[in-house]
Amino acid sequence: MPPPSRRSGRPRDPDVDRRALAAAREVYGERGWSGLSLEEVARRSSIGKGSLYLRWPTRAALLVAAVRDRARFVADIDTGSLREDLVTFAELWTAFATSDDGRLVERLLVDSHRVPEIAGALADDAYPEHVRGARTMVRRGIERGELPAGTSVALVADLVAGAVRNHVATTPAHLAARDDARGYAAAVVDTVLAGVRARAQPSP
Amino acid sequence: MPPPSRRSGRPRDPDVDRRALAAAREVYGERGWSGLSLEEVARRSSIGKGSLYLRWPTRAALLVAAVRDRARFVADIDTGSLREDLVTFAELWTAFATSDDGRLVERLLVDSHRVPEIAGALADDAYPEHVRGARTMVRRGIERGELPAGTSVALVADLVAGAVRNHVATTPAHLAARDDARGYAAAVVDTVLAGVRARAQPSP
Repeated sequence: MPPPSRRSGRPRDPDVDRRALAAAREVYGERGWSGLSLEEVARRSSIGKGSLYLRWPTRAALLVAAVRDRARFVADIDTGSLREDLVTFAELWTAFATSDDGRLVERLLVDSHRVPEIAGALADDAYPEHVRGARTMVRRGIERGELPAGTSVALVADLVAGAVRNHVATTPAHLAARDDARGYAAAVVDTVLAGVRARAQPSP
Repeated sequence: MPPPSRRSGRPRDPDVDRRALAAAREVYGERGWSGLSLEEVARRSSIGKGSLYLRWPTRAALLVAAVRDRARFVADIDTGSLREDLVTFAELWTAFATSDDGRLVERLLVDSHRVPEIAGALADDAYPEHVRGARTMVRRGIERGELPAGTSVALVADLVAGAVRNHVATTPAHLAARDDARGYAAAVVDTVLAGVRARAQPSP
């Protein structure tokens, strides 16, 4: 009998994937890259090391999958309006980024700049979910005519995702609790959209 | 003879400070927070542990001083024009953030969310140099009348510093070499300033 690998055509058990990814996040959060052993992930998830290897060929591939798994919700934001998409994204990302799982996104980014294996695992797929998600929203908005055709997708996504990331990273904990995430998200998005539109107009 | 502490009134030797901070960055870059020992910093800088303790009462205080020391150049940007200040800041920060010392700024931020001692050392002084620096520039611009009086200083600084931070974090290495940092910096700043000004105007 062939092993239940991705190539065998046998369906993967999503519950096994979920448990493995949750255990990998837990171990990485507690012990960092140097403490992320497959033995420990196998132990906490009650999944054999062989099964882990069949799914993720390296420790770094498992880590990248585990961190991204929780950020994937961004891809589902599709309200039909660019402003609403971006405000929803900015608001939800603010909440996610301050959670334990959200903190791992920044940690993975930092580790990718010093650990070649992680950089390698990211190489085919270099953009984190929030960057990719924000870019998709902007692209759809341009297609719908909500922004001028020549708008730089990367610039708009960097401005919105970057402002949120900066806001989260530098708001002291005692202020974060009182934070008006929706109001802040709206101010960011409205400023960026107004700026892009103003620059596209001929000067008076 | 009293020890050459800050309180003794005897001037500190800036060369000793520089050597200690450089050694602390080196050890932190190589070994992370868990490997940052005062013994190792003392050994590499040829400065006694006692002298280190007189200057920085804790390991976390030394680390925060070491990382911030190299980011301090931002505070010196003051061209007399808000646009020029912000473009210069965005361009220089792009270069700094991809350097070995610049990477430590992000690493310290990530570690501050999981290591209480680091969070404690940052508490009195929670804003990284680039956030503080960008805010100072925006504040001066408002005083000079370059932006409307009610402009949110934090919002403008988050947009500019955040876009740059995001751009640097997510540009793959092979593209970063070809990056037009000045052009990107100008596009970010011009979009943000146009957005703030457009939102301050009454709608036509």
